[in-house]
Amino acid sequence: MSLRDDGAAAVEWVASYLERVNELPVLSQVEPGDIRAALPSSPPDEPEPFSAVLRDLDSVLLPGLTHWQSPRFFAYFATTASEPGVLAELLIAGLNQVGILWRTSPALQELEEVTLEWLGQLLGLPAEFHGHIEDTASTGVLSALAVARALRPGRRVVLCSEHTHSAADKAARLLELELRKVPVDDAFRLRPELLELDDACAVIATIGTTGAAAIDPIPEIADACEAAGVWLHVDAAYAGSAAVCPELRPLFAGWECADSIGVNPHKWLGVPMDCSALWTRRSDDFRRTFSLVPEFLQSPDDAVNLSELSIPLGRRFRALKLWAVLRCFGRSGLEERIREHVRLATLFEKWVRDEPGWEIVAPRYFSLVCFRREGTDEDNERLLDQVNASGKVFLSHSRLADRYSLRLAIGNFRTTEDDVRLAWEVLRREASPL
Amino acid sequence: MSLRDDGAAAVEWVASYLERVNELPVLSQVEPGDIRAALPSSPPDEPEPFSAVLRDLDSVLLPGLTHWQSPRFFAYFATTASEPGVLAELLIAGLNQVGILWRTSPALQELEEVTLEWLGQLLGLPAEFHGHIEDTASTGVLSALAVARALRPGRRVVLCSEHTHSAADKAARLLELELRKVPVDDAFRLRPELLELDDACAVIATIGTTGAAAIDPIPEIADACEAAGVWLHVDAAYAGSAAVCPELRPLFAGWECADSIGVNPHKWLGVPMDCSALWTRRSDDFRRTFSLVPEFLQSPDDAVNLSELSIPLGRRFRALKLWAVLRCFGRSGLEERIREHVRLATLFEKWVRDEPGWEIVAPRYFSLVCFRREGTDEDNERLLDQVNASGKVFLSHSRLADRYSLRLAIGNFRTTEDDVRLAWEVLRREASPL
Repeated sequence: MSLRDDGAAAVEWVASYLERVNELPVLSQVEPGDIRAALPSSPPDEPEPFSAVLRDLDSVLLPGLTHWQSPRFFAYFATTASEPGVLAELLIAGLNQVGILWRTSPALQELEEVTLEWLGQLLGLPAEFHGHIEDTASTGVLSALAVARALRPGRRVVLCSEHTHSAADKAARLLELELRKVPVDDAFRLRPELLELDDACAVIATIGTTGAAAIDPIPEIADACEAAGVWLHVDAAYAGSAAVCPELRPLFAGWECADSIGVNPHKWLGVPMDCSALWTRRSDDFRRTFSLVPEFLQSPDDAVNLSELSIPLGRRFRALKLWAVLRCFGRSGLEERIREHVRLATLFEKWVRDEPGWEIVAPRYFSLVCFRREGTDEDNERLLDQVNASGKVFLSHSRLADRYSLRLAIGNFRTTEDDVRLAWEVLRREASPL
Repeated sequence: MSLRDDGAAAVEWVASYLERVNELPVLSQVEPGDIRAALPSSPPDEPEPFSAVLRDLDSVLLPGLTHWQSPRFFAYFATTASEPGVLAELLIAGLNQVGILWRTSPALQELEEVTLEWLGQLLGLPAEFHGHIEDTASTGVLSALAVARALRPGRRVVLCSEHTHSAADKAARLLELELRKVPVDDAFRLRPELLELDDACAVIATIGTTGAAAIDPIPEIADACEAAGVWLHVDAAYAGSAAVCPELRPLFAGWECADSIGVNPHKWLGVPMDCSALWTRRSDDFRRTFSLVPEFLQSPDDAVNLSELSIPLGRRFRALKLWAVLRCFGRSGLEERIREHVRLATLFEKWVRDEPGWEIVAPRYFSLVCFRREGTDEDNERLLDQVNASGKVFLSHSRLADRYSLRLAIGNFRTTEDDVRLAWEVLRREASPL
C-alpha cells in the first residue's frame, strides 16, 4: 500500500466524517450482536487494500458508532477530536515511540514534562507540581491511592463522597482498601465535618462530580487532610480544564493544596482519547512506589524515567497531541471554547427554569445542567429513552437526592447554540404526550 | 486550520520520515535536559498554525527521538508503525470513540471482541478464549493477578522464574502479593520441579522472556497449576505473534491450558503502540473482579461492557488498528514477515558462532539473538555503549547466567538483511580495538 495515497484517502474520510457527523443518529441504533454479525468470522488469508478497510468502516461499522463527535452529543462528559489533536495522533503513530527509559525517547519524556508544566500554568497550578500523562483518570486515582497506601502502612481507609466517581471503588477494590462514602449536602458536596480521618490514608475530593458537577469544599478538606497527615487527591477530570478561564478559577480554590490532581484534557480540552493529566507535588513518593529498573533497563545515563512514576512500563507519545492542541488553540482559544460552553449551559439552564413543569435539580457551575420533568422517575427515564431513541441528541442521567435526573453536558468544540436549542426542542416535544 | 491541508502535510511528514529514518542516528544523541531547554517555558497565548508544530517537530524534537522505526533498531523488542496501523490511528482519533458501555460504541466493543477472536485463530488458540485489548502487557498481568487473588483469598504468593518480566514485580507490589522467583535451568527456563504451589494463587510462565526469549516448560507448569487449582498466566508479549507461523507453533505447546494469555500485537505484529491482547478462558472471573456499573452508567440494554473486564473505564477504539493490520497484511503477510525475521536472526546467530572470539549465550527460537564477545562484562558493556554511540544501530543487553550479554532483537517490518549485516559489521569494528 502507499502511505501517501491511502493517507490522503484517510484524511479525506475523517474530514468528511466530521462534516457529516451531525446528520447521523447520535446514539447508535443497532442491537447487541448486530455489528458482530456483519463481520467475517475469520481474518483474511491474503492482504486486502486499505480502501477495503475504509469501505467497511462506512458500510459495516458506522451504524454501530455512537457519535461522540456529534455536536449534539450531550451525554456523560463529551470529548473533542480537534484538528491538531487528530493530526498529532497520526504523527504519534508514525513515530511510534515507546517511552520506557528516558533514552528510549528523550523527546517524549521531556515534552511530556514540559507540556504538563504548560498546562499547569494555564490552570493556575503552583510550579512545584510535577505532571505526567496517564491513559485515564481511573488509572490516575489508582496510582495516587497506591502511593497513599504505601505512605501510611496500616491505614486502609479511603474517604470520599457518595458522588465520587466509581473509579475510586475500582481502585479501592484492587488495592484492598476500604472506601467509606461520606454524605453530601443539598448541593451534592461532601460534608467535611463528617470526615473521620483516623484510619485513613487518603481522601478523594472532586471538583465537578460526574452526577452533578458538584464541587466538594476543597479548602476545608485540604486543611483536615493536612492536619491528619492524609493524602488528598483532587479529581477534576472533567471540570479541571475550566480553570483556564480566569473567571472560573475561584471554583478551584484550595486544589493547589492537594497531593495529587487529575484533569482530563481528553474530556474538555480538545485532545483525543487518551490523555489524562496527573500532577503531584510528591513525585518522589510516586517514584518510591512504582520504580523498578531491572537489569535489562539499566542505562548509562542517570535520568529519572517517567515509567518509574506509573503502572505501565511503555508509554505512547501522548504529549505530542497535548502539545499540538495547546499550541494550535493557544491560551485564548481554549478559554474562548470553555467560556462558550458555559454560556450555552447557562442559556439551557434558563430555558428549563422558565418553563413550567421542568426544574433544575443541582447548582450549575460549569457546562453540565441537571434537570428533570415533573412526574415520576419512570416518566423521566422513559422521556430520556425516547429522546435518545430519536437519534437527534444524546443525553444521559444521574441519580440526585434519590431522584432520577437528566444530564445535559456540553463539551464538544463543534457544539453551537442551535444544537443546544435542538436538544431543548426534542426534550419538550418528547415530554408533551407524557 | 484546515484538516485537509494540514492533514496532507502531516501524511507527507510521516511518509517522508519513514523514508529517511534509516539515515538518522538510531539512539538519540542528546543529553538529559537538552530537549527541555529548546522548548519555550510557557504555552502560547494566541493560536499558532499546525505548520509550526510540524516545523518544531523537525527542528526541536527530532534530535531527541530514539528511532524505534529505524530498520536498525535492534534493542529491547521492536515495534513497527505499519502503514495500515498508522492510518488507522488517524481514523481512531477522528472518530474519537470512548468505549465505556457497549452502547457508547457498539462497534468498538464488538470489533474488539471479533478481532481478538481473529487473532486467536491466527495464533491457534482455542475458541473458548475471550479476548480484549489492554494498553500494555503490564496492565494485562496486573489484571490477571488481581483476578487470581480474588479467586484464592488467603493465598498471597505468585510464582514465576527469575527471568519473568519486571511487570510481575510491579503488579505484585500493587496487589500486595509475594512474588517468589523460581530458578531457571541452563536454557533460562523455569524449573517446574521447584514450584511450591501450596500458598500460591498464580503462576506466571513466559514464552519468549525479555532477557533471552527463553520458553518456560508450559505443559509441565500447566499440569501443576491445574492440580493445585492455581491460576496460570502465560506472558507471550513478544513471542506470541510468532505463533502465526505453523512451523513455530510447537514452541507454544501447552499455552492453550492457561487461564490467561498476553500477546502484544504492538510488538511484533505491525500494530502501533498501544495494543496488548489479553485472552482468558475465565472472563466471568474477570467480570466478577472488575465489574462496577454505577447509576450514571445504567443503560436500557443488558449487554456486557468491556469496561467490566479491565481497570480503565474508558477505552480507545484500538481494535480498529488491529483490524486494519490483520486485513491489510492477511495471514500470509504476517507469517511472511515473522518468518523473515526468524531467518535473519538465524543468519546473525551463524555469523556470531562462526567468528572466533564471539559466542552465543542462549538458545535462539525466535528473532532474538543473545551473544557476547570474549573478555569481561565491562568489556562487553563498553562495546555496547560504543556501538550505540555510533548511532548506526541500537542494541540492548541482558544478564544471563550472571554474565553481561548483548541482545540483537529483530522485529521491525522494514528491517532487511543489509541492516542486520551492518549491525554485525559495526559490532566487529567496535570490538577490534578492545
